[in-house]
Amino acid sequence: MADKITPKEVDYSQWYIDIVLNAKLADYSPVKGSMVIRPRGFAIWERIRDEFDRRFKETGHQNAYFPLLIPMSFLEKEAEHVEGFAPELAVVTHGGGEKLEEPYCIRPTSETIIWSKYKDWIQSWRDLPLLINQWANVLRWEKRTRLFLRTSEFLWQEGHTAHETEAEAVEETLRMLEVYRDVVERHLCIPVVTGIKSESEKFAGAVQTYCIEAMMQDRKALQAGTSHFLGQNFAKAFDVKFQTRAGSLDYVWATSWGVSTRLVGAVIMTHSDDKGLVLPPSLAPEEVVIVPIYKNDTKASVLAYADKISAELNAAGIRVVVDSDDSSSPGWKFAEWEMRGTPLRIEIGPRDMQSEKLVLVRRDSGEKKFVPAADTAGTAKEALADIQKKLYEKAKVFRLEHTQDVADLPGLLDYFGAEGMGTADAHGGFARALWCGSAACEADLKARTKATLRCMPLGDQEGIQGKCAICGAPAKHRALFARNY
Amino acid sequence: MADKITPKEVDYSQWYIDIVLNAKLADYSPVKGSMVIRPRGFAIWERIRDEFDRRFKETGHQNAYFPLLIPMSFLEKEAEHVEGFAPELAVVTHGGGEKLEEPYCIRPTSETIIWSKYKDWIQSWRDLPLLINQWANVLRWEKRTRLFLRTSEFLWQEGHTAHETEAEAVEETLRMLEVYRDVVERHLCIPVVTGIKSESEKFAGAVQTYCIEAMMQDRKALQAGTSHFLGQNFAKAFDVKFQTRAGSLDYVWATSWGVSTRLVGAVIMTHSDDKGLVLPPSLAPEEVVIVPIYKNDTKASVLAYADKISAELNAAGIRVVVDSDDSSSPGWKFAEWEMRGTPLRIEIGPRDMQSEKLVLVRRDSGEKKFVPAADTAGTAKEALADIQKKLYEKAKVFRLEHTQDVADLPGLLDYFGAEGMGTADAHGGFARALWCGSAACEADLKARTKATLRCMPLGDQEGIQGKCAICGAPAKHRALFARNY
Repeated sequence: MADKITPKEVDYSQWYIDIVLNAKLADYSPVKGSMVIRPRGFAIWERIRDEFDRRFKETGHQNAYFPLLIPMSFLEKEAEHVEGFAPELAVVTHGGGEKLEEPYCIRPTSETIIWSKYKDWIQSWRDLPLLINQWANVLRWEKRTRLFLRTSEFLWQEGHTAHETEAEAVEETLRMLEVYRDVVERHLCIPVVTGIKSESEKFAGAVQTYCIEAMMQDRKALQAGTSHFLGQNFAKAFDVKFQTRAGSLDYVWATSWGVSTRLVGAVIMTHSDDKGLVLPPSLAPEEVVIVPIYKNDTKASVLAYADKISAELNAAGIRVVVDSDDSSSPGWKFAEWEMRGTPLRIEIGPRDMQSEKLVLVRRDSGEKKFVPAADTAGTAKEALADIQKKLYEKAKVFRLEHTQDVADLPGLLDYFGAEGMGTADAHGGFARALWCGSAACEADLKARTKATLRCMPLGDQEGIQGKCAICGAPAKHRALFARNY
Repeated sequence: MADKITPKEVDYSQWYIDIVLNAKLADYSPVKGSMVIRPRGFAIWERIRDEFDRRFKETGHQNAYFPLLIPMSFLEKEAEHVEGFAPELAVVTHGGGEKLEEPYCIRPTSETIIWSKYKDWIQSWRDLPLLINQWANVLRWEKRTRLFLRTSEFLWQEGHTAHETEAEAVEETLRMLEVYRDVVERHLCIPVVTGIKSESEKFAGAVQTYCIEAMMQDRKALQAGTSHFLGQNFAKAFDVKFQTRAGSLDYVWATSWGVSTRLVGAVIMTHSDDKGLVLPPSLAPEEVVIVPIYKNDTKASVLAYADKISAELNAAGIRVVVDSDDSSSPGWKFAEWEMRGTPLRIEIGPRDMQSEKLVLVRRDSGEKKFVPAADTAGTAKEALADIQKKLYEKAKVFRLEHTQDVADLPGLLDYFGAEGMGTADAHGGFARALWCGSAACEADLKARTKATLRCMPLGDQEGIQGKCAICGAPAKHRALFARNY
């Protein structure tokens, strides 16, 4: 199995594809730009989705469902929005055997269709806040795609909220950013930087876009989620006014926020190794695999013993599977379950039974330990919790090691390997640098190094003094630059 | 509130729409033929979906996700399939600003795209059975729509399984039919007839379609779910062969099965009354609403007491809400929560506090009881379980009362009110009649009475002797006829 995977150092992109295909997480599809999410990939997405869903409900949001198709004229009501999305649209021109009077697009995001209904639902401050989330498929035509990370169709959630005041809407934007940060860090074990996007990178139609940015193992950045403060832009575009507590009429304040199946790609890229997938226990379809080792004369007793251990783990709420397939060897099974990313392996042979010990192997570190069989569930729980903790810590150390303060343009060119452009390894990672705030500087650096301004990190904007690392003008912000997915 | 609902007897269709809109379950959308599922409607769908999902997983199925778009040429590979679905397709002709070489349709169902992948995934009997389910949106262009019951876009699940033998595939078809029956009867409290569809009513591309059929309160039938035995039709269309245990090559055997958001409409139509929605406790977003009744001087103590009772119910796993909104009267709240279908109401006033009793009101029967406050949770649990049971029994009695054996054509014309066509009340309900098996007889009866052959009930096909009720030829089946949604 392992030899099917191109080593990370040889070709990072191919390594990623090899894992996705061999671990049967996803597959290519006959539809250009679209992917098929296979059961093992979908099971990971379900666990990510369920945790977010729980957190959204905890913070007062309700799920709803809006139409897939959007009249083209709706998109045109918000000038920046249509400009941003028009090039990516799939257009339905015929329905029920007839040419349509007005074409529809497949939703690239649902602000417009949702705000067209909010106009009917919101009359007074009593109708606010309106806190709605939708789990849905969306479609943005893409020329260059990558399984999970960038596909034309993808699955996501999109929160769309309406508020009485600007302050409340900003608070909601930041509350959901914090939910994103917390779930991605604790549940997916991916450390992220929270920050604000520059004007040129923000959502088309937003006043301000907040984001969480993660570092992959090739030191590139991946935008893992965004939360937008939309101001009154969509309320004005769809004429959504409400009677205020004071009795006057005002436009509603809005937010929207989303995470997608791209997160599955982020999990794979952050934790995996050359043997295959590495998964946080919280996301693993099976947390423990038991591999029984036997010959003909010991088969019955070893299998019975494996089932007993399995039942104990199961009773303790641990997701466990016994691989008792006779058509493959234990060695083959070890490699196969390592490929699949199962966090813990328990090996049981006749001698282990007699000595009342088990062999416990960790997927993250490869560490192998003999442990007493007496409290297998307790031992496994402890090991799983430790894996969850260590994966996060390891990723955080990696990011720290590849984040550097850079003072000026020569430094940035050197860090991002402008000379050696074209090789994935020629860049340093995240550069923390002062910035004057001009889009020209962003564009200049991107043209020279492919590095983009990922965000202006929250909590890192105090005491800005000095010069823009790119143009030398007085700096206004501290920014994080990186190549990105 | 109640006066917003047109009485059932006056106009059943309007009664249904009034409930859907006033209970805020769904709303019309600016997209022709599509609806918006509002949070209270979506919460019901989530509870239906989660129960099915649990049952699918229990029976060994895994979720996956396939593309929304399907190349038009794929549909044409199965002759009956394309003939059945072509008139209902929405067609995407442009993507990313360019005209597409081959147009895509939005999936009306996913057999073709899924079987195009099964060709890659199935080589040997070791890859079988393949048991996959997908939760997704689908689109079938509709001219005449009705909220939840018939909309162009709807949400559903579609199971797609592949098997070694015909017998196994038939067994799977019937297993899933039984899961459907059990969940719809026990969780949704809707009694159903399980049966086989006639040739003219079966799924386009199936060998045999099994269904569950329910009776609504206007005595019309509603198809609540279908399970198809597809034979080798799609395996042949997509050339999916596997190596058998004997070493030869054979085409794979298939099933598909689905239920949709239409079930939410079935729940509303089966149980509700002129006061609004009636919901089985299993589906209710809130099982109990507590309405505190107070004046200024008793407000604090009554609210504190209501919160205490609420906490007790909550601790017992009962979904409960306290309506402490000061801007509306208790009477208005009673009507509002009746409209919303909350199964139990608890009223708490200062006198009830002193006497340590509570007022418990059932939504289904209107029955009002004083009960001791000592074990509110136990009392509520008992009442909720009884409501769940009684709703099912009541619907079953209603169906029995409106199901009749009919022997001949004059009897059928009389039963279905051919003379009085055009009024919803002119028909009797379900007619159980012998049938020769010819499509001409089905068409004849439909033209005269609007009644269609709903199914040939399973377990009711023994000892067929006599004449077709329509044409008088020797009968082959016992069939159920009804007008339908």
